[in-house]
Amino acid sequence: MGQLDTRRAVGCELCVQDGGTLVLRGNKLRVIRAADADHPAFYRVIWNDHVAEWTDLPPEDRSWIMRAVAKVELTLREHLKPTKVNLASLGNVVPHLHWHVIARFDWDARWPAPVWAPVQREVTNAEQRLLVPLAELDQLVAKAVDSLAP
Amino acid sequence: MGQLDTRRAVGCELCVQDGGTLVLRGNKLRVIRAADADHPAFYRVIWNDHVAEWTDLPPEDRSWIMRAVAKVELTLREHLKPTKVNLASLGNVVPHLHWHVIARFDWDARWPAPVWAPVQREVTNAEQRLLVPLAELDQLVAKAVDSLAP
Repeated sequence: MGQLDTRRAVGCELCVQDGGTLVLRGNKLRVIRAADADHPAFYRVIWNDHVAEWTDLPPEDRSWIMRAVAKVELTLREHLKPTKVNLASLGNVVPHLHWHVIARFDWDARWPAPVWAPVQREVTNAEQRLLVPLAELDQLVAKAVDSLAP
Repeated sequence: MGQLDTRRAVGCELCVQDGGTLVLRGNKLRVIRAADADHPAFYRVIWNDHVAEWTDLPPEDRSWIMRAVAKVELTLREHLKPTKVNLASLGNVVPHLHWHVIARFDWDARWPAPVWAPVQREVTNAEQRLLVPLAELDQLVAKAVDSLAP
């Protein structure tokens, strides 16, 4: 993952792979977009070093990753006008700190349940229903998060 | 909810009810414990005023609620030694800003899936398996979050 990633854990997939479509790589964190046809505007802010819990980070780094999460959330809100944004740091399966930032819509396949709940309806054109193409959205997200760089 | 709650939304249950067992009430936010037999160490940090999205708050208040979330997480980690802590701000059903802070265990009813996924196994004694009784845990959480008060 580059010379800036100083801490890795053996067997952790987020220590050796981007974890999705790379949107932006910074010194401390990266942003990827997950491949989820039901929830196409699904981003993750991933800490580059291997830590399991958000509070494993010192307070200044906790704030830093949350500022990136806020930038992603604000970009999704501005350009997609979602019904709601969902934020989560779970990591039960891959205990490497990552924040999910997901634009949710009242027409999406699991609304109003969380994206981890069973499907409630079939939606075959979710990506096409977004107000902005994903490639353009990726660029908007990258620009927003990049503006944080010191 | 008291005179300090200056903004309420009609029909919002978190504007008129605590939303669970009240653990601590501060000027800006409160902490409650949810009643979830499968996941007994399930806390929520709820913003007192009615806002839907985390980024509806100005940056200093975003930081303030996250500092409270961190205090809850650190308390659960120290006293329960959970397998993982799950954090989430969803609000699809009740769009009034609240952060879920949930201690997860590799023996719990939905592990390793999120708490919103279907049950994977029956666990009848989850509360009894915690290292600390819930009433004591509530006090520890309250003390930790109260230490933030200016």
